[in-house]
Amino acid sequence: MTNNAAVHTLHSAMRRALELAAQGPSTGVNPRVGCVIVNAEGDTLAEGWHRGAGSKHAEVDALSQLAPGAARGSTVVVTLEPCNHVGRTGPCAEALIEAGVARVVYSVTDSGERSCGGADRLRAAGVDVQGTLLVAEGEEFLGDWLVAARLGRPFVTLKWASSLDGRAAAADGSSRWITGGAARVDVHQRRGAAAAILVGTGTVLADDPALTARDADGALLKQQPVPVVLGRRPLPASTALINHPQSPLFFDGRDLPGVLADLHGRGLRSVFIEGGPTVASAFVAAGLVDEYLIYLAPTLIGGPRLALTDIGVAAIGEQRRLAILSLDRLGDDVLIVARPQTN
Amino acid sequence: MTNNAAVHTLHSAMRRALELAAQGPSTGVNPRVGCVIVNAEGDTLAEGWHRGAGSKHAEVDALSQLAPGAARGSTVVVTLEPCNHVGRTGPCAEALIEAGVARVVYSVTDSGERSCGGADRLRAAGVDVQGTLLVAEGEEFLGDWLVAARLGRPFVTLKWASSLDGRAAAADGSSRWITGGAARVDVHQRRGAAAAILVGTGTVLADDPALTARDADGALLKQQPVPVVLGRRPLPASTALINHPQSPLFFDGRDLPGVLADLHGRGLRSVFIEGGPTVASAFVAAGLVDEYLIYLAPTLIGGPRLALTDIGVAAIGEQRRLAILSLDRLGDDVLIVARPQTN
Ligand SMILES: NC(=O)c1ccc[n+]([C@@H]2O[C@H](COP(=O)([O-])OP(=O)(O)OC[C@H]3O[C@@H](n4cnc5c(N)ncnc54)[C@H](OP(=O)(O)O)[C@@H]3O)[C@@H](O)[C@H]2O)c1
Ligand SMILES: NC(=O)c1ccc[n+]([C@@H]2O[C@H](COP(=O)([O-])OP(=O)(O)OC[C@H]3O[C@@H](n4cnc5c(N)ncnc54)[C@H](OP(=O)(O)O)[C@@H]3O)[C@@H](O)[C@H]2O)c1
Repeated sequence: MTNNAAVHTLHSAMRRALELAAQGPSTGVNPRVGCVIVNAEGDTLAEGWHRGAGSKHAEVDALSQLAPGAARGSTVVVTLEPCNHVGRTGPCAEALIEAGVARVVYSVTDSGERSCGGADRLRAAGVDVQGTLLVAEGEEFLGDWLVAARLGRPFVTLKWASSLDGRAAAADGSSRWITGGAARVDVHQRRGAAAAILVGTGTVLADDPALTARDADGALLKQQPVPVVLGRRPLPASTALINHPQSPLFFDGRDLPGVLADLHGRGLRSVFIEGGPTVASAFVAAGLVDEYLIYLAPTLIGGPRLALTDIGVAAIGEQRRLAILSLDRLGDDVLIVARPQTN
Repeated sequence: MTNNAAVHTLHSAMRRALELAAQGPSTGVNPRVGCVIVNAEGDTLAEGWHRGAGSKHAEVDALSQLAPGAARGSTVVVTLEPCNHVGRTGPCAEALIEAGVARVVYSVTDSGERSCGGADRLRAAGVDVQGTLLVAEGEEFLGDWLVAARLGRPFVTLKWASSLDGRAAAADGSSRWITGGAARVDVHQRRGAAAAILVGTGTVLADDPALTARDADGALLKQQPVPVVLGRRPLPASTALINHPQSPLFFDGRDLPGVLADLHGRGLRSVFIEGGPTVASAFVAAGLVDEYLIYLAPTLIGGPRLALTDIGVAAIGEQRRLAILSLDRLGDDVLIVARPQTN
């Protein structure tokens, strides 16, 4: 192959590997990874992907399609740096070395504390290793998982719905419905994509929410987030939460980094905070929010029921500046997706 | 001319009349009106527009371009129904009848209490009258004036700038700058287009605002709104307001419809309310806001300084639903333009 053709082959193999990765489960302890093995002529020899915790990693899955020795001298294209740790499966770096592959090309570097170091291990064994091919696509794809790996805690999304003047409810506490059907469908889809959904006891006691991810007809979506409740007050035995398909987790909530570390330890890589105002404000004040989903309904309410209460900003210089990622109409409502401004 | 050609002529004459109307002053007692006089062949005989209170109305301005008798049998295309009242100028309907015009085609019906009835007067004199040609464009163009004529009070625009959580300032009152340069430029342009700018004594005492319309370099724009201050507290003699190119008006503010009626009586057809929160909330609670301009900065502030305070909504059924007319990015900020929902 010419050099250009070889580059082209690697790019399309990586795109295919990303497609394969997307077939894995989107929530869970492990990242979604895809792998394509090509020979020197650029032909695909095997494909593989990771099907979730406990099952084969993508590289091993691909290798397992081949007869012994068939991977010798091949190029392995994989969306994440091969791991170097012995988990429920052996380290992929070793498997690749044993299979005699000539070259490994990966997209995203593994920054996981225990899994990193695969590239060095491969190089030490004489394998030609190239990282960060299509890294933007690779990182975008891994999303929450990657942030969680880097932060050592789940990716935290804070959602609230308010009127244009920032109220979450009327003075008497009534709030159904501020936002419309399209916003609700959107929230439920995002619940279904999150590993955990978190609220305070205030919300449970006031609303008795199911905290499930449902479709427009009320049917449960395939993936359900683990419900997490923060607070000391006891909940009534009849709380709707006990019927959740996932067992709820309870914390007193006074140590938010501790809560997140606990969730991370359980393999929960993303947390969707749905309120209420007190818990939401506590996460904002602690600087623990990675993404904001603000659903604004075209209405004014006024009064004391604010979507955010106090976040520890005394003077304007302390305001929490955000960068708006997207601004969309959702039915009659507006959805603003924003992240903390970094500069 | 064929019928199609005649229709085409009328449409383009009306479009031209709207262009002419736009040459008049955009704020003031009188509507901006344009007029084109065409003959039976569709040729333009004369054009006219209204240059502001006390000067000739558009129809009379156009007629005055013509030699006596030259308008006989012509078609007069005018953006607003010819008036029927004797103000500082005689009624246009009479002038058109005297000139012997055969036909009058207008866009917007005049609903003004004293000026309406021109079409009937013309018909009674045997003139062929057709209304509502390009009426959507005509109404859109007349905007505030038309609403003022229908409401019998100025068109009220309420503007505020807030964080995404609805705060107008930090806990200590500091608020410069929540929104960015593009939003400020936009606000000043809108100030310049308003007949009056209104604030409460709280804002004057806290910020000592100039309440002028300025360009990005701080230079005064050509048109300046009349400053209006509501409240009982005395203002210091040194207030920046006294340097405003227009003389400020003062009201105690406890009778908001009365304030608006007074402004209307002075020929002020639009009021731009710039706060603060107390006065803004009073106008919302009284149902006296026709349009909302909500500048949302990508920031979170929390705490007690709300853009809107209480608007008299006790339960969610009493919320003030709005219809969003536009949603735009303005630099880093978001501008939502909304109107009360009518249904
Ligand atoms: N519009 C929306 O998007 C939305 C969403 C959710 C809820 N809501 C509304 O919000 C209202 C409930 O508000 P809320 O603020 O009471 O609910 P909340 O934030 O769900 O619960 C607050 C409670 O959480 C506990 N908590 C745990 N960790 C905490 C920490 N680090 N800091 C502070 N508190 C902590 C405390 O309870 P303990 O005393 O038990 O420890 C606290 O009283 C309901 O009316 C609900 O309808 C609105
Ligand atoms: N972010 C923004 O868009 C924005 C815009 C403007 C101001 N602000 C901030 O708002 C703060 C001032 O807030 P504020 O609420 O005190 O200002 P305000 O609304 O300008 O003034 C309130 C005062 O208006 C008088 N008033 C007149 N008619 C009234 C009525 N119908 N109902 C109630 N009050 C009436 C009362 O004063 P009397 O006792 O004198 O009668 C009242 O105390 C300042 O810190 C300023 O920086 C923010």
